[in-house]
Amino acid sequence: MITLHHLENSQSFRIIWLLEELNVPYELKVYARDKKTMLAPEEYKALHPAGTAPIITDGDVVLAETNAIVDYILDKYSEEGQRLRPAQGDKNRVPYLYWFHAGQGSLMPMLLMVFIFNSMTEKTPFLMRPLIRRVTQTAATFFPMPRIKKLLGYMNDQLEENQFLAGNELTAADIVTSFDLMTIGRIKLFNFQRDYPNIATYLERVEAIESYKKALAKSEK
Amino acid sequence: MITLHHLENSQSFRIIWLLEELNVPYELKVYARDKKTMLAPEEYKALHPAGTAPIITDGDVVLAETNAIVDYILDKYSEEGQRLRPAQGDKNRVPYLYWFHAGQGSLMPMLLMVFIFNSMTEKTPFLMRPLIRRVTQTAATFFPMPRIKKLLGYMNDQLEENQFLAGNELTAADIVTSFDLMTIGRIKLFNFQRDYPNIATYLERVEAIESYKKALAKSEK
Repeated sequence: MITLHHLENSQSFRIIWLLEELNVPYELKVYARDKKTMLAPEEYKALHPAGTAPIITDGDVVLAETNAIVDYILDKYSEEGQRLRPAQGDKNRVPYLYWFHAGQGSLMPMLLMVFIFNSMTEKTPFLMRPLIRRVTQTAATFFPMPRIKKLLGYMNDQLEENQFLAGNELTAADIVTSFDLMTIGRIKLFNFQRDYPNIATYLERVEAIESYKKALAKSEK
Repeated sequence: MITLHHLENSQSFRIIWLLEELNVPYELKVYARDKKTMLAPEEYKALHPAGTAPIITDGDVVLAETNAIVDYILDKYSEEGQRLRPAQGDKNRVPYLYWFHAGQGSLMPMLLMVFIFNSMTEKTPFLMRPLIRRVTQTAATFFPMPRIKKLLGYMNDQLEENQFLAGNELTAADIVTSFDLMTIGRIKLFNFQRDYPNIATYLERVEAIESYKKALAKSEK
């Protein structure tokens, strides 16, 4: 049986959701972050050499990296998993590949950069803060922000025609990428309702999914 | 036939290499960066709504995002491509999934953050530069650098036993991830020979591959 090692407030929420959606048995072990540093506890870091969240163990297999874990689980439960990963030749395969990889390879890295810039400003002593804020905001305006906007604009256009990112059914691309969008909404980086209305409707659609609601309840326990 | 739109000095080198390794016909269109801003030219940005490099076109398909393009090409040339993407059930499948996704989902984002920090320091007026350097170096020491070191340490251990990242044959995980390593070597972020000797040997092994040499020659034209 798969054990999901869930670090609180981390990207591993997506794996809980995937497992709930596939309706497969798994064990959930929740790890609290260090209250001071907000880093993972030593016990968590010892699980995998990369130390990143999420991590799963399954017999001899110890695996980190969100998308690797998603593919591993879809491999393992391939009959039911096929529904969440359009096969070669399926008309939804190409948009699936794009959003599955763009979520982790482009959107999340750019978001992370914005977070780090904000945290650099917050951690600077008060008197120097305006200067650091100016430098980090200039950098954000130059690099991550235009890239995030382009991705969101493209996604908003795609969601004009489709209910989900790859066609009209939920796929693992939604499970990976909508988490990033929820994060954007929570920190109010954009106002989806005003700027990307199709994304706003899409997120309401996601939030109504039973497996999403169950995963949320489990991750917040 | 696939057309690869290659932006100079960009991650699209990996797609040239993949196509050369598969020995499939493709058209290569090279785009120069704007000499002042170093950004992609308008002509390039117009190809795909995300505007990121690499981009391929293939009939009606226009696709961006490195790993999506890799999967698309391995799908299309699935007979030969199978060699570069271990199938479900293959003993090399799990390490393949890890390094294929970790290259784009962890290593490259952390590297990008280091580049942006360096560029923030360089672009700051001379008098304020020491302060900005201190702030960006503190941030790099706290966030991307420990993550890069952990990944490289893990990789170095794996390469003690294996010739390549997923077993003893080249896979697409090597094509995606060794590019990041070459970049690290070029900017001298680490001294592989001293700190990660198995990675140094691995890179020599990669540089001796015919398709790698051909791709390098084509991308530098």
